[in-house]
Amino acid sequence: MDKFKVFDPDFEKKVRDSFQRQGLMTLFGARLLTVKPGYCEIEVPFKKELAQQHGYFHAGVTGAVLDSACGYAAFTLMPSNCTVLTVEYKLNLVAPAEGDSFVAQGKVVKSGRLLKVCTGEVFARKNGRPTLCAVSLSTILAKEGEPDGPG
Amino acid sequence: MDKFKVFDPDFEKKVRDSFQRQGLMTLFGARLLTVKPGYCEIEVPFKKELAQQHGYFHAGVTGAVLDSACGYAAFTLMPSNCTVLTVEYKLNLVAPAEGDSFVAQGKVVKSGRLLKVCTGEVFARKNGRPTLCAVSLSTILAKEGEPDGPG
Amino acid sequence: MDKFKVFDPDFEKKVRDSFQRQGLMTLFGARLLTVKPGYCEIEVPFKKELAQQHGYFHAGVTGAVLDSACGYAAFTLMPSNCTVLTVEYKLNLVAPAEGDSFVAQGKVVKSGRLLKVCTGEVFARKNGRPTLCAVSLSTILAKEGEPDGPG
Amino acid sequence: MDKFKVFDPDFEKKVRDSFQRQGLMTLFGARLLTVKPGYCEIEVPFKKELAQQHGYFHAGVTGAVLDSACGYAAFTLMPSNCTVLTVEYKLNLVAPAEGDSFVAQGKVVKSGRLLKVCTGEVFARKNGRPTLCAVSLSTILAKEGEPDGPG
Repeated sequence: MDKFKVFDPDFEKKVRDSFQRQGLMTLFGARLLTVKPGYCEIEVPFKKELAQQHGYFHAGVTGAVLDSACGYAAFTLMPSNCTVLTVEYKLNLVAPAEGDSFVAQGKVVKSGRLLKVCTGEVFARKNGRPTLCAVSLSTILAKEGEPDGPG
Repeated sequence: MDKFKVFDPDFEKKVRDSFQRQGLMTLFGARLLTVKPGYCEIEVPFKKELAQQHGYFHAGVTGAVLDSACGYAAFTLMPSNCTVLTVEYKLNLVAPAEGDSFVAQGKVVKSGRLLKVCTGEVFARKNGRPTLCAVSLSTILAKEGEPDGPG
Repeated sequence: MDKFKVFDPDFEKKVRDSFQRQGLMTLFGARLLTVKPGYCEIEVPFKKELAQQHGYFHAGVTGAVLDSACGYAAFTLMPSNCTVLTVEYKLNLVAPAEGDSFVAQGKVVKSGRLLKVCTGEVFARKNGRPTLCAVSLSTILAKEGEPDGPG
Repeated sequence: MDKFKVFDPDFEKKVRDSFQRQGLMTLFGARLLTVKPGYCEIEVPFKKELAQQHGYFHAGVTGAVLDSACGYAAFTLMPSNCTVLTVEYKLNLVAPAEGDSFVAQGKVVKSGRLLKVCTGEVFARKNGRPTLCAVSLSTILAKEGEPDGPG
């Protein structure tokens, strides 16, 4: 990941501060794990309110959290005067998100000045064993003049 | 919308029952509005927990609700012995979802036996005026042998 | 379509000139039909070289032409000092493209200054009857300082 | 890649035979390189007809070839009585495809019985140096009863 140029040495603090301000991540009980240049990892423990009717995580939850992980991965590579906006994302749901928690990993694959392209993966963990549940590909915009986080 | 063949005459009851069982839609305070063959509309009133840091609806919320609207639109056209699974969706976020509420509209554009393709739109309403906030294109699978809803 | 603001009164000439310069469109035998603000239509007559093994149009051809139709739809709404770049597109192939020709229609659904979002449709025509074969959703960038077409 | 179960021991011959029958790949001058379980690589040397107006490979060409590489990657994992259909794909164009040739690599990330999910990458080679030009995420259907290739 260290192949990407970092413009803001305080990128990790910037990401963690922004994450704190997100009502939805709090509502979900999401926790920010690793934050590195071009990479971000978010974990969500299971709770009943996040389930669909079969008792698995709702795809809307995995999608929202994966979108945030990708947005923050892109945010780590932006200068301090930029905010981050998701232009679009595409998500394939490849297995039911069943387990005690899931981890969403966002990764920058191309870091343009204006646009960053990210891939993402969601792994559900059941009894310690991870299963790939979702894969994504997204486009993130670095918007100048509004120093803030994704959402 | 009446161009599509309906296999389950109780499609509306089936959709409304399934919606009731979705913890996430309850958590969001979402309401099911119109349900027609190949079409479904869901409304979400604003509340602080659904916001990102600027006070708009979080994209994860609009995305999750739009995914549900498309899944239920597809579900209306399935026989009673099928459940509905989102294979994948792609979402463009075209304006901030700012307002007192938003409405997500899912529409089937191709109804294959196995796969249904849906387009979706999200309109935020501020002082009664709607603004297009998100557009989607998704693929939904009709899975036989498990009569239930999306998620 | 007249809801969109046109910045270049010569948009149609600009689009038709750029289309002429595209080697791939010539190779495919593609013809530019209607060009309106926020809208573009391209037709391709069938020939054997454009087929896959069943004798239908290859999905790569319908995809490439639909991408061009969307790019040019976006290009109609750009000032004269801008070129057009496809950031990304997503395509659902909903029926085999079987027939004597197909028509790809690109339509702008959101015209931001920097980014335009387009939906697209491909209809194959067999014995005069159109069939919907593909649906797309794409993001197009208006790049300043390079007056030219998509591709 | 050997983590995937192979149902047809003749998968490589099956893929190479199918590739031969594709008029479009011949028109492009495409060559099939590596074929492994869950993986396929296709190379295209530059020629003027494949260019857009700046002299780079047209995005329609890279997209079509990447779609084929992903379809064939999925095809390697299907039983002999199945054909392969692209349900949908999403493509991000991350750099101009400038060079003497490009290579498209398709990779299966989830091999369901019915649906396979693939990621793809295109690298343009200029003076021997590869540059990432496109990234994709696609859904491929294994259709029973019609033993043939993608397209």
